[in-house]
Amino acid sequence: MVETRTLILAAVLASGFARAESTVPFPAEYRTWAVTRTLLIGPESKEFARSGGLHHYYANESALEGFRTGKFPRGAIIVDERLETREVNGVTLEGERHGVAVMMKDPEKYRDSGGWGFDRFAGDNRTDGADAELRGKCFACHTQRKDADFVFSKVRK
Amino acid sequence: MVETRTLILAAVLASGFARAESTVPFPAEYRTWAVTRTLLIGPESKEFARSGGLHHYYANESALEGFRTGKFPRGAIIVDERLETREVNGVTLEGERHGVAVMMKDPEKYRDSGGWGFDRFAGDNRTDGADAELRGKCFACHTQRKDADFVFSKVRK
Repeated sequence: MVETRTLILAAVLASGFARAESTVPFPAEYRTWAVTRTLLIGPESKEFARSGGLHHYYANESALEGFRTGKFPRGAIIVDERLETREVNGVTLEGERHGVAVMMKDPEKYRDSGGWGFDRFAGDNRTDGADAELRGKCFACHTQRKDADFVFSKVRK
Repeated sequence: MVETRTLILAAVLASGFARAESTVPFPAEYRTWAVTRTLLIGPESKEFARSGGLHHYYANESALEGFRTGKFPRGAIIVDERLETREVNGVTLEGERHGVAVMMKDPEKYRDSGGWGFDRFAGDNRTDGADAELRGKCFACHTQRKDADFVFSKVRK
């Protein structure tokens, strides 16, 4: 009986409660990387429901090389950090972290998605990634930019 | 006569048209540094006329050490980059650079202003600093934070 309950518990955890381990490692150092650009998606935008808030895009050294040369090397990482905002006396301030979306170049590991791994970490968690459906949507959308090595972002001067 | 006119022209240039060489070097690499925080000063703010727009605060490695330890070493540089903004379909985008304000720690060179040099570069220029009056105002305001080594900014996690 004990074993049966343990098995059921394990099955429930695996199916419902446990979340998927990320396919891309959490970019622990990203807050020290260059911010390539920033934008604020406000309530008037049709993107607000899906991705409203303040977005900072970060690039590690290899990704900066990719932006310079047009060819992103293995190890290039781009992060889309999405923050809530709060307004105090007409000043918009950074609030809680909604999550970070990450793309990492590794042509071997991610050969089925243009050489890039796509994942997302909600809130402050650093281990649980997105489900396969959402990861697939990331890639599907980024194929619009296949001619730019699947990268939407640019570096503001 | 020619010499007189030349002298007058030189005097006019020195007094009115020529701008002061900066007292702090332009931080040429700042766009690759960590962004410690970002805020948007909107039209509802009483600061709007003086400093409205999007502000990114950058810190070089030495300044990040200062934020960690509370003691900013010689060579620490903090940059306040102020950008115009433009709105497209409810999304606020980064616009032209209004200017960058810089503070650099050098206890010897800037011993009369708390060990920090203060300066500002308008627009995209990298050579002409602020006049003495404005530099004095920078320092005067930063003395409010004497107990924090004259630094207002903090690092968002």
